[in-house]
Amino acid sequence: MKHAMVNSALGDDVYGEDPTVNALESKVAILLGKQAALFVPSGTMANLIAVMVHCNKRGSEAFVGNLSHIYKYEQGGASFLGGVLLSTLENKPDGTFDLAELEHRIRGGDLHEAVSCMVAIENTHNVCGGKVLPQEWVDKLGELCARRGLALHMDGARLLNASTYAGESPARLVQPCDSVSLCFSKGLSAPVGSVLVAIQGLFLKTFSVDVEGQHTNIVLVRISSSSRLTADVVLQRLAQVCLAETQGDCKTPNDEGVIVKAVCFNSKTIRFTLHHDITDEDLWLAIMKIVYVFKELEAANPLN
Amino acid sequence: MKHAMVNSALGDDVYGEDPTVNALESKVAILLGKQAALFVPSGTMANLIAVMVHCNKRGSEAFVGNLSHIYKYEQGGASFLGGVLLSTLENKPDGTFDLAELEHRIRGGDLHEAVSCMVAIENTHNVCGGKVLPQEWVDKLGELCARRGLALHMDGARLLNASTYAGESPARLVQPCDSVSLCFSKGLSAPVGSVLVAIQGLFLKTFSVDVEGQHTNIVLVRISSSSRLTADVVLQRLAQVCLAETQGDCKTPNDEGVIVKAVCFNSKTIRFTLHHDITDEDLWLAIMKIVYVFKELEAANPLN
Amino acid sequence: MKHAMVNSALGDDVYGEDPTVNALESKVAILLGKQAALFVPSGTMANLIAVMVHCNKRGSEAFVGNLSHIYKYEQGGASFLGGVLLSTLENKPDGTFDLAELEHRIRGGDLHEAVSCMVAIENTHNVCGGKVLPQEWVDKLGELCARRGLALHMDGARLLNASTYAGESPARLVQPCDSVSLCFSKGLSAPVGSVLVAIQGLFLKTFSVDVEGQHTNIVLVRISSSSRLTADVVLQRLAQVCLAETQGDCKTPNDEGVIVKAVCFNSKTIRFTLHHDITDEDLWLAIMKIVYVFKELEAANPLN
Amino acid sequence: MKHAMVNSALGDDVYGEDPTVNALESKVAILLGKQAALFVPSGTMANLIAVMVHCNKRGSEAFVGNLSHIYKYEQGGASFLGGVLLSTLENKPDGTFDLAELEHRIRGGDLHEAVSCMVAIENTHNVCGGKVLPQEWVDKLGELCARRGLALHMDGARLLNASTYAGESPARLVQPCDSVSLCFSKGLSAPVGSVLVAIQGLFLKTFSVDVEGQHTNIVLVRISSSSRLTADVVLQRLAQVCLAETQGDCKTPNDEGVIVKAVCFNSKTIRFTLHHDITDEDLWLAIMKIVYVFKELEAANPLN
Repeated sequence: MKHAMVNSALGDDVYGEDPTVNALESKVAILLGKQAALFVPSGTMANLIAVMVHCNKRGSEAFVGNLSHIYKYEQGGASFLGGVLLSTLENKPDGTFDLAELEHRIRGGDLHEAVSCMVAIENTHNVCGGKVLPQEWVDKLGELCARRGLALHMDGARLLNASTYAGESPARLVQPCDSVSLCFSKGLSAPVGSVLVAIQGLFLKTFSVDVEGQHTNIVLVRISSSSRLTADVVLQRLAQVCLAETQGDCKTPNDEGVIVKAVCFNSKTIRFTLHHDITDEDLWLAIMKIVYVFKELEAANPLN
Repeated sequence: MKHAMVNSALGDDVYGEDPTVNALESKVAILLGKQAALFVPSGTMANLIAVMVHCNKRGSEAFVGNLSHIYKYEQGGASFLGGVLLSTLENKPDGTFDLAELEHRIRGGDLHEAVSCMVAIENTHNVCGGKVLPQEWVDKLGELCARRGLALHMDGARLLNASTYAGESPARLVQPCDSVSLCFSKGLSAPVGSVLVAIQGLFLKTFSVDVEGQHTNIVLVRISSSSRLTADVVLQRLAQVCLAETQGDCKTPNDEGVIVKAVCFNSKTIRFTLHHDITDEDLWLAIMKIVYVFKELEAANPLN
Repeated sequence: MKHAMVNSALGDDVYGEDPTVNALESKVAILLGKQAALFVPSGTMANLIAVMVHCNKRGSEAFVGNLSHIYKYEQGGASFLGGVLLSTLENKPDGTFDLAELEHRIRGGDLHEAVSCMVAIENTHNVCGGKVLPQEWVDKLGELCARRGLALHMDGARLLNASTYAGESPARLVQPCDSVSLCFSKGLSAPVGSVLVAIQGLFLKTFSVDVEGQHTNIVLVRISSSSRLTADVVLQRLAQVCLAETQGDCKTPNDEGVIVKAVCFNSKTIRFTLHHDITDEDLWLAIMKIVYVFKELEAANPLN
Repeated sequence: MKHAMVNSALGDDVYGEDPTVNALESKVAILLGKQAALFVPSGTMANLIAVMVHCNKRGSEAFVGNLSHIYKYEQGGASFLGGVLLSTLENKPDGTFDLAELEHRIRGGDLHEAVSCMVAIENTHNVCGGKVLPQEWVDKLGELCARRGLALHMDGARLLNASTYAGESPARLVQPCDSVSLCFSKGLSAPVGSVLVAIQGLFLKTFSVDVEGQHTNIVLVRISSSSRLTADVVLQRLAQVCLAETQGDCKTPNDEGVIVKAVCFNSKTIRFTLHHDITDEDLWLAIMKIVYVFKELEAANPLN
């Protein structure tokens, strides 16, 4: 690890230009089968960001286990920094809680009530003795959350320990979850750091891709009709960020070659084309660049 | 006033069933040319609600005059209760501020920045000596806000004084504004109370009406495709709330007769029909009922 | 009630000068055996203020019953407006909860934890069917809270119903509580309004009175050594507020005569003297004036 | 720097046991002439913590320059995370602002107002072009803040650049300040990290030392009378944390020897004795341990 620290490439992460952080984020996103990742100093911060993003309305309620790290050991930050009502469900010895009780307590239909927005679980469950959550229960909870419109977050500080015990991939364990935090400083023995991993929706809703409709190497990205952005504007900024000679082409961070070619298809559609030399890692780095550009432009041109 | 207090009809305002409050709210909404009104105990609370509704994202910024009541005399509540960054523009002696400076300071395009969401003005302007804002300036500010996607709120505690001086209707003075607070306990000499008045968008985006397409007495209300609600569900609840024998018909609060007839047109469209005996006040009372039902159901069935 | 509304004396409550509100506040304070009261529009607001005052540190935790009005029907306002972590204890059918569990869950000794600051109970208990809390339990809870440094608040919206059923005075029922909310619009059938009643400590710590050491009609008020205020400053402002000819004398709100005579004893001590014509109500009105002056000066001259 | 990263000793910073972080914190505290330091991931977090600690009452106001990093580039976090009203003073080209205007705008004497709690300045001033603040102005501002009871924070991200230009020690430049943030990733070229440095009062008010009364190697630490702690309790925990054989003795972090000997003088006084082999760094490490123990116990036994 010390060797890696000394020899890693550096860049300014504020601008999304630290290749090592980008590579770490994409690696973890791939490992967990999600679209995006964010490196943060601590697991508590990762959980806090997840709660604040999922609970983005005044009067939001998040359900957590009464023995969870979020409830017991994070200083109530979800409430005093995020303004979120943390409601507890009683953890059983295996780290689960009763799903019928959860469903019964979902609320927001009466103007007197807080509005239930999310559920957080913990895998492995620290206070319950490092227990691995039964996957069948996680899957059922995922169905319940999807059906009732709740986001599902997993505090996966020790997710890789759970994966080892369960004999399942990390991506499988978190498949029903909208977001996952993962800690590098526990079983992974890094000196510091955590990551928040999420499906695209958590970070972005400016554009969409019809994933099932992409059969070959052409990917059409459609800019939302409610967005003020146009393909031209996106391509122009992409070209600046990628330092590409050709407008909008997306080079590797180290500028070693075009990895994704981008052209304007129509005012609301960008076409990206890929070639066979591109590795998964290259691709993720390109995606991160593209996402960064969308995020930046979206902030400057908020949705109507 | 004391006579009116003693003789007014009473009901439970929590359920939208106090006819006097409903009548007051609809009267003020009509007076100011907006779609909805909310009676509240104080002008400070009305302003606070407006800021918290317009600034509904974490990291929101509201622009206010440096001599405004919101900035000087409301305990910083927009920040400590609403989490909103209040940014000041220097008030000139006439209560206005420089529009070029405002435009220059609008931000949110860089991830380091707060996101500008709204502007609040004050008419008449208390600390500037009860000055009436030049209407041309208010109109220009309205154009700027519309063009840059900012909400415009008027602290109109003394709006009726401004109307008298300017010789213009209150509705004209607040025409460019998304919301207005109005105080009953100043020039109007009521013992207590204020009202927050707003365009429909502030309270609701579950349904829409093509206002220009309504030529006669049939009004089609289309439920947003992103809403989970269907016409059946809305009509069923409307019938309960209105205590109507026929499903969905909207009676007067005093239950004296059907004032608006409602039927299901298709799964996402409700048709309301009106007859020639209905007064503007009757109509507003019906609209308040309908809006209440949508708000209640929307809270129970949040947008996807 | 309507007669009383029409015939009550009016004044500006912002400056503490509405004699009817002052009389109502002092009457309720006396009724509940506490030192101060604050008239507010709703019971939800009264409870919210109590939680925000008792939980005045970042990361504060308040314990409430899982069937309490505060937890179920106040939109999570303690969290989203006050930033307070609401932690639930399971209500038994009689409205109580397990005191051993409460004691076990008090925390703040580890830097990871929220800091427990208060407990709120409800009497009568609405969701439990209007049950009157067993007084022995309330008293034991009061001892626990005092021993562990927690504030105790009672949501007493229906306290007078409890008093009737229990055959005990309201003051006795709330004796162990630091603050109590009481609702005028339920069993008391007023159209609107609630009150927050509290021991002095909730509102004030700038001065103290050695109550047991006051044997006759001389009351010595000692200004805290940590306060920047001096007796001169307090008397000077008291004279302005009371419109008294003699410095610091405290007249009735209607200015009908001196009711409490105040002189400077030394730089940190004020002597008040009373005479035998003063009624309890007169006294409370004077106290409210004095408290108002201290509050105002304290805000301008915060404690070191 | 890479050599230092690979060879530094490690420990768990959550428990104050990372010798490298402790050494860094004590080194910076000494460099800036303050009593305590806290290593944090970013300068924005350091500034946010300072604002949240100084502005610890609901309705607090912090004054900042209108071109400051805190106001322009920290997403309004002081408001949306800390609930603090940020009020701007117009920065002059040299990074200063008008002190007479600041004094005029200090408020909190009227119940309608926010309460002014702190002032933040920036040295060197980024947006003003890296300007070094005139020290005379900083000193005058410090006098004003002390006189009016405001805390003074310096965003000293580039403080060491200012020190080089001014030819003054960093400690001299920040002498009037209650807290200072310093960034390792700018002129100091570390890959990440900032530090918040403060006088003791910011972190702690449980004990005091009569610094001028310490003539030789005996240091008497007096526990505040308002604290519930006793010397016995502190010594007992100190012994556990220091892994000392003798109760309360404070060993080096690497456990190489007793560096400070502690005994109970009376129930509220601890006597520490030092010997001539102790270096300044040893001493600071011991102080950090002692402060940690006080902080931990204080959290578990809050002030009355």
